[in-house]
Amino acid sequence: MTTLNEVAARAGVTPATVSNVLRNRGRVGAATRERVLHAVKELGYRPHLAARALAEGRAPTFALMVSSIANPFYPEFTLAAERAARTSGHFLIVCNTNDDQETGRAYLEQIAGTLSEGVLVTNAELVFDDLRATAERGTPVVLCMWERPDDPPGLPCVAVDFRLAGALAAQHLLDLGHTRVGALVGSRSTHDDGAPFGIHGARRDGFVERFSAADDAQIVAEFICESDTIRGGYDAARRLLKAHPDVTALYATNDLPALGAMHAAADMGLSVPDDLSVVGITDIQLARESRPALSTVAVPTEEAARMAVDLLRELIDRAPRASRGNPGTPMRVTSAPVMVPRASTAPPRTRDQRTRSSLRKR
Amino acid sequence: MTTLNEVAARAGVTPATVSNVLRNRGRVGAATRERVLHAVKELGYRPHLAARALAEGRAPTFALMVSSIANPFYPEFTLAAERAARTSGHFLIVCNTNDDQETGRAYLEQIAGTLSEGVLVTNAELVFDDLRATAERGTPVVLCMWERPDDPPGLPCVAVDFRLAGALAAQHLLDLGHTRVGALVGSRSTHDDGAPFGIHGARRDGFVERFSAADDAQIVAEFICESDTIRGGYDAARRLLKAHPDVTALYATNDLPALGAMHAAADMGLSVPDDLSVVGITDIQLARESRPALSTVAVPTEEAARMAVDLLRELIDRAPRASRGNPGTPMRVTSAPVMVPRASTAPPRTRDQRTRSSLRKR
Repeated sequence: MTTLNEVAARAGVTPATVSNVLRNRGRVGAATRERVLHAVKELGYRPHLAARALAEGRAPTFALMVSSIANPFYPEFTLAAERAARTSGHFLIVCNTNDDQETGRAYLEQIAGTLSEGVLVTNAELVFDDLRATAERGTPVVLCMWERPDDPPGLPCVAVDFRLAGALAAQHLLDLGHTRVGALVGSRSTHDDGAPFGIHGARRDGFVERFSAADDAQIVAEFICESDTIRGGYDAARRLLKAHPDVTALYATNDLPALGAMHAAADMGLSVPDDLSVVGITDIQLARESRPALSTVAVPTEEAARMAVDLLRELIDRAPRASRGNPGTPMRVTSAPVMVPRASTAPPRTRDQRTRSSLRKR
Repeated sequence: MTTLNEVAARAGVTPATVSNVLRNRGRVGAATRERVLHAVKELGYRPHLAARALAEGRAPTFALMVSSIANPFYPEFTLAAERAARTSGHFLIVCNTNDDQETGRAYLEQIAGTLSEGVLVTNAELVFDDLRATAERGTPVVLCMWERPDDPPGLPCVAVDFRLAGALAAQHLLDLGHTRVGALVGSRSTHDDGAPFGIHGARRDGFVERFSAADDAQIVAEFICESDTIRGGYDAARRLLKAHPDVTALYATNDLPALGAMHAAADMGLSVPDDLSVVGITDIQLARESRPALSTVAVPTEEAARMAVDLLRELIDRAPRASRGNPGTPMRVTSAPVMVPRASTAPPRTRDQRTRSSLRKR
């Protein structure tokens, strides 16, 4: 691989001049610039971004903290974040915390500031105090998918209006004519927020507010999923449908439990959407590829990833290392979620249309 | 965060002695060792792995090259690889090549040897000459899921016997009584191998050999999927089922196209497994979570990831930097794939049992 020194020798300048030309820094005469660029082209030189960053005492990566890359939401987010990171020559380190606070803390201690110039945090059950301590030591931290734009977390973040997402799901079911529905909340309360519905509280509240405001509309039951997974949704949906066989639709605060709810309906002999409508939130790839395809409220995942990387870079560039710790706490809000109607929702059958046999199977 | 120097000061020794104690290197008397370990505990010191590696001129990460982390196979592999890498203090950088050779080459040039001490390669359409050049420059490279143990790639690799996987799928369909089946091959030929069925050649050959060897059994048609995806399998299955409505089962060389084949069957009014059995290869999470659950041949993904990381570490440790380029080309073979029968396969109906209506719908 051609080195900077070889380019400098060929162009008859110092390595510092080559560096200045390539980075548009310093004063370099037009003729010299021309000569350097010619040598670069001739020798096929490529700037060695990682080495450059290391030589400058900068860290060449961003760390992305996820609970588990195997959760289908994260790969899509990770792909977009890596693409965005690459535009400034940063590589992306994936840190699976397995929702374990100690693991998350160990990552932060080992990686922040040395290997990683900044930290992107998705919902990985990290302790906010650990994140603040990391930022105070000079390594910017950005929360990537904050769910409550009206309630800033005290850390720089990219927020998605998940309350609106819940409201849009409610409106969709109301527009179809559903009046008796059940809700599956995809997460429990966690240590950090203490809200009864955990990080999905905004999604839940938005749905409940909008649906309950309509005439004659009733949320018959709310069940919390044991886990925010297909399995968690399956189990919660079975319990809900057994206890309340008269609901005509289920809302789930995330796509995975919504997909589980569709499986539960199938196993109970209910046809989706004829006997039961199901709507989720997020629009992961699986939502498009399930049968029937899942109606869901799409959140701008790729946009959020790009915005998070951009914000992280701004925080890194904003101030010299020493004062990065207190950059204020900017919050950027993505474009609004959008309802995407697919095949899993339809107007409710009237009671007479619903077959007795399918009801008996419950 | 406590530093090595603080531990040394507390214990009244040099930083080098602390380092020796923590790494079990050099000669340190028992009393000194005791004093150092006491200071470590007292101060809550944690070795700073990333900083240590950088200080030693070693690279603190492994690079994992994938075509796209959004393909559902890779997150499962990545999770296992990251866990294995962490046991030696390495972090994992995810490199999405998007199946682009230039992108792959750029990663190798920028990352190998500086930021990453070794490179793990999954099927990312990289040019083997680029990988060999990387290894020759002193950064070990391991191919993680080589598909043909009987045909080594000329690079260190972990191999899975995919020919056997294909044979197991064939035997499963034969055992159920299927005699007329179709095959969907999940990839085309690529530049590097030139085989007509691309990297899925072994999976295809294993199936064809075993199935064709049975009396009265016939592979009625083989279709190549436009892409190794649910969509690619959907389209190929539709074409195959329209052209050959008499097949009673489909074999797909990967789970995603197999799931697509199930969707195609559903859209054509065919019930899986009553009208059509479908079997895939890999056993990704989706296979377990689809409805009906997909019968498939499970390959040991986690084991392969662990073995690949272990092999990479051996290659790194085996020789000083200068001679790493020619470490021989070890190949490790994982445990054998295993047939996992689920709900998508069943004995074929006799012709009379198959409803006319479902045949007409094709």
